[in-house]
Amino acid sequence: MGLFSKPIKTLDDLFIHTLQDIYYAENQIIHNLPTMIEKAENPELRTAFQNHLRETEVQVKRLEQVFQMHGQPVKSVQCAAMDGILSEAREIISDCDDAHVRDAALLSAAQAVEHYEMTRYGTLIAFARQLKREDYARLLQQTLDEEKAADQKLTSIGESRINRLAA
Amino acid sequence: MGLFSKPIKTLDDLFIHTLQDIYYAENQIIHNLPTMIEKAENPELRTAFQNHLRETEVQVKRLEQVFQMHGQPVKSVQCAAMDGILSEAREIISDCDDAHVRDAALLSAAQAVEHYEMTRYGTLIAFARQLKREDYARLLQQTLDEEKAADQKLTSIGESRINRLAA
Repeated sequence: MGLFSKPIKTLDDLFIHTLQDIYYAENQIIHNLPTMIEKAENPELRTAFQNHLRETEVQVKRLEQVFQMHGQPVKSVQCAAMDGILSEAREIISDCDDAHVRDAALLSAAQAVEHYEMTRYGTLIAFARQLKREDYARLLQQTLDEEKAADQKLTSIGESRINRLAA
Repeated sequence: MGLFSKPIKTLDDLFIHTLQDIYYAENQIIHNLPTMIEKAENPELRTAFQNHLRETEVQVKRLEQVFQMHGQPVKSVQCAAMDGILSEAREIISDCDDAHVRDAALLSAAQAVEHYEMTRYGTLIAFARQLKREDYARLLQQTLDEEKAADQKLTSIGESRINRLAA
């Protein structure tokens, strides 16, 4: 929590903090995906990243909608977890000489990103339900469903092509 | 990748690097779980963390077994992702005044940890299969199954008790 953040006293405070955390994370993903698209050799993987970039832009708008519905300013808190996941991704990708091995590393990095999003949206939906805000839960569930589908798509790309090519 | 790490040229190199990454992550989890156990108010949550600590110790042994089967020294590379997840966890937990809200934060943090493990073990299993090492895949699958079960247990604790108490 930053120096000027409010203390966390209630589940409502924790919900807002988690919303700010994933808002930061999603914006970092938007910032990093263009490099991942550029580095991907496999066309199916590149298309999956391009689709996910468009999806993430919609997911950011959904978060802004939840902030507004909750009467809160749209705000980020730095998310050390996503910073770590993405810095690890950049490092491993630059360490891979071979394009097919790099694709396997890109795919692995993208799945780590997806899993972070899945856990945070799962938490936000649970908090929203406890706060009796089924309307937020419904919106956030749309994003969670998209993240799960994106992760499954990456698994199937990995199984069918990239890992085999890299072996 | 550290200064003295080997470059990543093949899927085998990437497999070893990912093994070193999760080996570091698991050891960090063992280092941080005792504090999470101590801070947990809800007895069911505390028990889940205690069980997971014991499980993680076995998972570390399994990783050591895979290193040995693969003729590799047991080694860590720093995992910025797990460092980020755990530093965020420590920060949010210390920011929570109320014990029940802190439990909700602990649970959320633990699920972020589980999801990181799930994605890395999923990747390792996919790589092991491509490398035709079904023996590694079987061992790693045991851990993945435990991580999924631990995550589901946390979800059910969250749904049934903690979030409701904190609201």
